[in-house]
Amino acid sequence: MDFSAFDAYIEAHIEDALADLIALCRIPSVEGRKEALGEAVAKVRELAASAGIAAQSVAPRADRPPIITGEVGDTGPLLMVYNHYDVQPEDPLDAWETPPFEPTLRGGHLYARGVADNKVNLVARIFAVRAWNAVYAALPLRLRFIWEGEEESGGEQLAAFVDARHEWIGEAEGCLWESGYRDDSGAPVISLGVKGLLCLELRCKTASSDAHSGQGGLIPNAIWRLINALNTMRAPDGTVTIDGFQERVVIPSTADLALLDPLPWSAEEYRERYGVDMLVGGRTGTEALKVLFFGTSCTINGISGGFEGEGTKTVIPATARAKLDLRLVPNLQPALVLDLIRTHLARRGYEDIEVIPFEGNTMPARTSPESAIAKAAVEALYAVGGVAPIVYPISPGSGPMYELCQAHGVPAANFGCGWSGSHVHAPNENIRVSDFVEGIKAFGRLIEAFPRHAASTRNERATASDSPPALRQ
Amino acid sequence: MDFSAFDAYIEAHIEDALADLIALCRIPSVEGRKEALGEAVAKVRELAASAGIAAQSVAPRADRPPIITGEVGDTGPLLMVYNHYDVQPEDPLDAWETPPFEPTLRGGHLYARGVADNKVNLVARIFAVRAWNAVYAALPLRLRFIWEGEEESGGEQLAAFVDARHEWIGEAEGCLWESGYRDDSGAPVISLGVKGLLCLELRCKTASSDAHSGQGGLIPNAIWRLINALNTMRAPDGTVTIDGFQERVVIPSTADLALLDPLPWSAEEYRERYGVDMLVGGRTGTEALKVLFFGTSCTINGISGGFEGEGTKTVIPATARAKLDLRLVPNLQPALVLDLIRTHLARRGYEDIEVIPFEGNTMPARTSPESAIAKAAVEALYAVGGVAPIVYPISPGSGPMYELCQAHGVPAANFGCGWSGSHVHAPNENIRVSDFVEGIKAFGRLIEAFPRHAASTRNERATASDSPPALRQ
Repeated sequence: MDFSAFDAYIEAHIEDALADLIALCRIPSVEGRKEALGEAVAKVRELAASAGIAAQSVAPRADRPPIITGEVGDTGPLLMVYNHYDVQPEDPLDAWETPPFEPTLRGGHLYARGVADNKVNLVARIFAVRAWNAVYAALPLRLRFIWEGEEESGGEQLAAFVDARHEWIGEAEGCLWESGYRDDSGAPVISLGVKGLLCLELRCKTASSDAHSGQGGLIPNAIWRLINALNTMRAPDGTVTIDGFQERVVIPSTADLALLDPLPWSAEEYRERYGVDMLVGGRTGTEALKVLFFGTSCTINGISGGFEGEGTKTVIPATARAKLDLRLVPNLQPALVLDLIRTHLARRGYEDIEVIPFEGNTMPARTSPESAIAKAAVEALYAVGGVAPIVYPISPGSGPMYELCQAHGVPAANFGCGWSGSHVHAPNENIRVSDFVEGIKAFGRLIEAFPRHAASTRNERATASDSPPALRQ
Repeated sequence: MDFSAFDAYIEAHIEDALADLIALCRIPSVEGRKEALGEAVAKVRELAASAGIAAQSVAPRADRPPIITGEVGDTGPLLMVYNHYDVQPEDPLDAWETPPFEPTLRGGHLYARGVADNKVNLVARIFAVRAWNAVYAALPLRLRFIWEGEEESGGEQLAAFVDARHEWIGEAEGCLWESGYRDDSGAPVISLGVKGLLCLELRCKTASSDAHSGQGGLIPNAIWRLINALNTMRAPDGTVTIDGFQERVVIPSTADLALLDPLPWSAEEYRERYGVDMLVGGRTGTEALKVLFFGTSCTINGISGGFEGEGTKTVIPATARAKLDLRLVPNLQPALVLDLIRTHLARRGYEDIEVIPFEGNTMPARTSPESAIAKAAVEALYAVGGVAPIVYPISPGSGPMYELCQAHGVPAANFGCGWSGSHVHAPNENIRVSDFVEGIKAFGRLIEAFPRHAASTRNERATASDSPPALRQ
């Protein structure tokens, strides 16, 4: 198919697309900021309308940011598209070169909190539909958008939403996931799944109040106790040592590991990008890559306790707390891991340490590279840039992919407009404007490619079922 | 000697004494609050003047709170009296029942930050001199007060002050140390020394900025690294495991341990007072008491890093820090322990963790129970309350006793107006007014007793030197 008119439209109207993106990034749609979340909802609906997408807000909980659904297209296979309009909190604020909610163009990059994760993709995909409508007669597929507002905070609304719509979701023959990026070589990346996620807080209280540290030899210290407990959960080389945890990890198959072979990943470049002298456990090369794609992690996101001001205070703190997240691979479900942690701590005499899960933990999910969405994504990206995309077996990030897709039999894959220096979840988050342009073009190619691959996947299935199973004699 | 007129004066004027104490406690003389520290200096000088004590401010560093010296008495042995006019910071503020700098009388107690540590003693000792002057002809001893303003913050001025006055300080035949208390049974406590103190901060930086926790398996986490390092420094049972540390601890002698025998200490009551289920390492009885008086401790006073707000942030923190204090017994000098820690961490590959000492670390110090100040203190306390005081071989707290006293050959002991529920360095710090009254009376007895014991100590020394050593034939 000839995309020259489509591409010409995008190039002629890129300032409009950029204006849409800047307007959306200007809204500080962070958990708890109700007014901003409301503005983001209005903006998403306005963008949808501009592309002829019929949008609807659904709010299982009235006090929370709604899920917005959007539908467009009358015929062809159904492709689901998932994005979110909320963003990570912006702190540490002083590490930003320009304010996180004042989107700034600098050297071909756009800097803003949430621009890469994932507002750029939300805008690019809608804008591609607008371009398609402007240039072509009709869409060759049906698109069903799901835009949620609790991805970064792990709200429970999406679960309630999908529970009530198992068949509606199952109608989709594939799903394009929220975001993606180009790696260091500039090649676009497709990920066929996500790691699972469990976020929790550990709280420790050892005495009725803080005490003078002259009693430090005898009065228990909540920080020491918390630290001692944490140290039983992870070895310094990064291995999670929670009882029963490693036993449940699905060891990558030879076929899984073969997916790593073509990856152009360099541990050295990776270290340099993050400004790190050594990777966890001193890992290098394929060993590091295996951890990234098939490994688990237990991260302390934050810790606090006692006197945190300047100078000294000779005090024994009575309370301390730590926030943790665990990235999970099959077959580690969040609820199971939570149980394992509680049992692990209790066995070691730490039953007094409270283990409090946050909302919105997610399952690990994987998609076959033979699925229509995976094949169409590869074709679309190759068609735009002329560079073979890199296919990752799983994304090191997490999201409710299992809950929204695999649980309903919908294969999901991702690609998007970030790059390896996007600083997702960190200060100075940014995208390159050139990637934004290519991202809009790539979604146009996906609109064309997905129906073909969906049809051939259906044919394969049909052919396979032509041979009825042999009856037992 | 008959003290009835002295005691009558105190009882008749106790409201004046209490007014002095309340006025001093109203001043928030915390490190860094220059105006309040200046007010405290003026108030101390005003109180000194009211008792005929000639006071002088000495400030080796003009930007810091001065040391005030005060002298009174023309004849007799010289007794040094050490107190400080600064107090600990008041946080956590919301744990106070009444504001820390609005001294409040409630149920016979006076609540205020710094009242027990140690403004009550500063006021009681001055007021005793005032009472003595009002009732008797002349003081039978010379008193030299040293009031400093950096005890809680560990300033370096006292070191500079004493370095320049080795002989002036060495003239004293004893020193009464800043504060003391009554134990659970109501018996007054005398401590013959202090533990040493080393305060420091550990800082860890693992990457150029925070990263998304999807990379948690590979990107080093500053909190985990700091925690891993901390865990090599102390066992969960409280034993300090810094290389070379335990080897230098002077093991208590049989005579030292015998000092513990008469102590009426109960681990159970101690636990209850602090609201603690179990002491560190599950210690009980004499084992716990040995740790309290002859043991060391490594306390984490505070820790911070990463996301400390509400909710979740899936981030790998690039920086983390912890504040520590170590309580030291002979022969652990702070400078030596600092070296041990640096070597210990470097040996384990943690040379990237910065070890930053705070100012004002102090040496451990011990005093003989046969010294004039020890004997006079026992006599003075017994004379007031009719209860034999409890003599501790060392105080679990710390202070510059070695630097100010033992380094110049001056034996030092303490007693004071606190009680076992004074909550020193903690919210709701308080004293009992009845202990304040007895504390003033006790200092009066010390004024009378010290010259006698100093003379007999001198006689003993003289008698001992009457027998010249036998000459080798």
